[in-house]
Amino acid sequence: MAVAGGFGWAVGKKSPREQDTSSTIPLNDAVAPVHNVQRSNLQSAWVDLREVVGEENISEDEFDRKSHAGSDWSSHQLKESQIPFAVVKPASTEEVSKIMKICHERRIPVTAYSGGTSLEGHFAATRGGICVDFSRMDKILNINKEDMDCIVQPAVGWENLNEDLADIGLFFPPDPGPGAQIGGMIGTGCSGTNAYRYGTMKEWVISLTVVLADGTIIKTRQRPRKSSAGYDLTRMFIGSEGTLGLVTEATLKVTTKPANTSVAVCSFNSIREAADCVFAVVGAGVPIAAIEILDDVQMKCINEAGSTSRTWKEAPTLFFKFAGTPTGVKEQIGIVQKLAKKAGSKGFEFARSADEANELWSARKEALWSTMAKKRDDNDHVWTTDVAVPISRLPQIIEETKADIASSGLFASIVGHVGDGNFHSILLYNDNERKTAEDVVHRMVARAIEMEGTATGEHGVGLIKRDALPYETSDETVAAMRKLKKAFDPLCLLNCDKIVRVERPGPGEVVQRYDH
Amino acid sequence: MAVAGGFGWAVGKKSPREQDTSSTIPLNDAVAPVHNVQRSNLQSAWVDLREVVGEENISEDEFDRKSHAGSDWSSHQLKESQIPFAVVKPASTEEVSKIMKICHERRIPVTAYSGGTSLEGHFAATRGGICVDFSRMDKILNINKEDMDCIVQPAVGWENLNEDLADIGLFFPPDPGPGAQIGGMIGTGCSGTNAYRYGTMKEWVISLTVVLADGTIIKTRQRPRKSSAGYDLTRMFIGSEGTLGLVTEATLKVTTKPANTSVAVCSFNSIREAADCVFAVVGAGVPIAAIEILDDVQMKCINEAGSTSRTWKEAPTLFFKFAGTPTGVKEQIGIVQKLAKKAGSKGFEFARSADEANELWSARKEALWSTMAKKRDDNDHVWTTDVAVPISRLPQIIEETKADIASSGLFASIVGHVGDGNFHSILLYNDNERKTAEDVVHRMVARAIEMEGTATGEHGVGLIKRDALPYETSDETVAAMRKLKKAFDPLCLLNCDKIVRVERPGPGEVVQRYDH
Repeated sequence: MAVAGGFGWAVGKKSPREQDTSSTIPLNDAVAPVHNVQRSNLQSAWVDLREVVGEENISEDEFDRKSHAGSDWSSHQLKESQIPFAVVKPASTEEVSKIMKICHERRIPVTAYSGGTSLEGHFAATRGGICVDFSRMDKILNINKEDMDCIVQPAVGWENLNEDLADIGLFFPPDPGPGAQIGGMIGTGCSGTNAYRYGTMKEWVISLTVVLADGTIIKTRQRPRKSSAGYDLTRMFIGSEGTLGLVTEATLKVTTKPANTSVAVCSFNSIREAADCVFAVVGAGVPIAAIEILDDVQMKCINEAGSTSRTWKEAPTLFFKFAGTPTGVKEQIGIVQKLAKKAGSKGFEFARSADEANELWSARKEALWSTMAKKRDDNDHVWTTDVAVPISRLPQIIEETKADIASSGLFASIVGHVGDGNFHSILLYNDNERKTAEDVVHRMVARAIEMEGTATGEHGVGLIKRDALPYETSDETVAAMRKLKKAFDPLCLLNCDKIVRVERPGPGEVVQRYDH
Repeated sequence: MAVAGGFGWAVGKKSPREQDTSSTIPLNDAVAPVHNVQRSNLQSAWVDLREVVGEENISEDEFDRKSHAGSDWSSHQLKESQIPFAVVKPASTEEVSKIMKICHERRIPVTAYSGGTSLEGHFAATRGGICVDFSRMDKILNINKEDMDCIVQPAVGWENLNEDLADIGLFFPPDPGPGAQIGGMIGTGCSGTNAYRYGTMKEWVISLTVVLADGTIIKTRQRPRKSSAGYDLTRMFIGSEGTLGLVTEATLKVTTKPANTSVAVCSFNSIREAADCVFAVVGAGVPIAAIEILDDVQMKCINEAGSTSRTWKEAPTLFFKFAGTPTGVKEQIGIVQKLAKKAGSKGFEFARSADEANELWSARKEALWSTMAKKRDDNDHVWTTDVAVPISRLPQIIEETKADIASSGLFASIVGHVGDGNFHSILLYNDNERKTAEDVVHRMVARAIEMEGTATGEHGVGLIKRDALPYETSDETVAAMRKLKKAFDPLCLLNCDKIVRVERPGPGEVVQRYDH
């Protein structure tokens, strides 16, 4: 067998003494992982896997395999070679452990799948192998009201969880795209509109049960809301995109659902005026629940989609969400109204009832769909990308990005979690325009990095933003990340090629823009 | 030279194939690190180090060396062998990198030192070597009001930082013990009274510059307030107690200083009644800034110390801090007063002015000093320990711990960050009572763990709570932590022996209670 003598991903050029003692693995020292995806090995693995999950929980259906490797809303163009040979559906942590032991022994790569809503090629099976689909592990195992925590399996959706929590007055704040599930939300380190007030996924996970690459099961900690006991493995796994281990259970913090919420909307002459308003509100310490910015293009899309009952001013617009006691909410709205006026707002509408609040906020929620409604025909694709910058740089980067989009000839709207300095661009493009779209996106990313920002505020790196990472941090920082990857997954079985490159790219494979 | 062929800490029993492919290092497979602290090597290192920092920044003074390895308030009894041979004071990241390159080449262990306020033997030089004292790196490099962040060196104290921030209406929430500095606060993953509202140190660090064990300098990320770009190295280093790298610069989040704060104090017949009040307040989602609990013993100490102008009821007491708009604070006090009454509070005092608020809060702040004032004589030591549990378990663990303390015959008070389920016990003991104190502490830790809690909510593991960690998590989880340690510090140079054992303990070295 080809792999008999191979330990997979190994350190290359350095002497044994050097490799054993250094704290990083530079890309030049990384050697290609050696997997075994030969037909005979996969067939034998199939038999082993059947023992674990039963034949009915292994799919080799082509549609299944393809839909577990990519999606229409992903920015990654899936290659034929990036599809798993089987989709395996375990029902428990123990089954996941057995699956990993089989794949570890047989050197078969593994990708994890829960909601499938990620955007940057996160679950493309770059090396083939199997996809572990968590759909059978979709239970809310416990909600503890007094301790304000809950225990869930990876395929629980955040929307479903919040429905159950709402019944007892509780609330789980991270609100990424609809359909996202806890497993992927942990993998991505997601956030959403609530992050300004409540923080990201990183703040809402207490503990994780994780199956490591060799099948070892660990639980990162127990249930206290805070702990300084040992390395923070919990947070190490959050945002690791399924490359360090497979999350099979999570203990999450929850909080009290605000008794009263309201919404206000105001438009401005320019992005800069809107941003000035945000700085004023943030600087005044108003405890608002969310601040979102939508550009003129986005507001036009909402009007044209006609899915909300109002007609909006087609100008840069801020959406505020307020939460708290009735008096508190009223007081906050008063302060924000004053600050918005001072910053030059044109009109300030605020909800006088819960229905009005829902009506106003629905316009924000419709952003993605209303932009997608602008597709010229079925050949158009959508590319949703995100970056984040220190908030003082936000007006400049949005202005420059809008100008760049305009000169590219593409159609794109902008919507952002402005209180975090995080914004999205939603681009439409067809196959002929792919290169133009890529260039717009990578220029936007480079611009964010050059403004001391990040290549991604909440969507993650996947395959698409990998080469931005050394530019954002440094070759040394990424080499330290590579060392972390190798420590936990020496054979590079888990979501290989994501976040960090594990071998040198071929010629032309790297986006030149980040070649620094 | 003894180390010529040795790569230090290596994996023992497993075959090369197994060690290269596994995701953990079980304790039984760990082999003792091989350092070189022979006089000749240290003398040569001294010459190298002088080149880097200058002779005036290397101290071999005995008092200096001892005070850089332990303190009177640490629970660890320092051994003569645990003192560094020199204290080295670098002035920059580059100098720290050069120091680490020297120590890496020469296999000399290193401990880091900033405020020296840690409690669990965190900076004992278990293997000798050198201590890197950051006192010359004590600058606030930048405060960016618009982006609400600041850049600081490791020896900046949180109290000094807050003085500078207050001048421009800003605030850095983590509030550990007086004298703590940013470097150690990151190392410990500290928190304090503000954690209930604002979260711990883990939530307030944007980015770190770190010197790794081999001298490599990395910066974990740039300045955006949120990012999903790559592994969260920032949080990996927070709470790593100087065992994975030396932090030389930190970019911290700051927030708006609340314009209005107030304080309320109420006492209860029992810990359980006080806890019921806390559950009611937390459950109602009142956005209080802090909730602290002090037991009857602690209140008695405060009265006897006479450092506050009032005489307090010697009963379990809650201290509430409120922050927000004037209306908001008033509303919060009203709600809490009602809930406290319902839970059985005896009296409810709230501050009607800023001076009164300071006066009330000062009683909470005096907790440690007033207990220390109860020392019988100079032979008494103080042992401050902390655990955390899911908040529903808090009344039970405090009651059981108080009963255990009473039957031990030791004097001890209890004070806690009750909103987080985190509490401290402050014990007095003399050398004859050391074993009794150890037993009380370890029983308290075991009790917390058995209630799904943690061995330490905010003080860290150091040497004292190491053997509780496998009991709290599992042998496999600690074996994964050991793998992380080895990845970044293969020679085990950085604060060796802290958090996780890196070699099997000698007979009798492990506290039997945790032998599971």
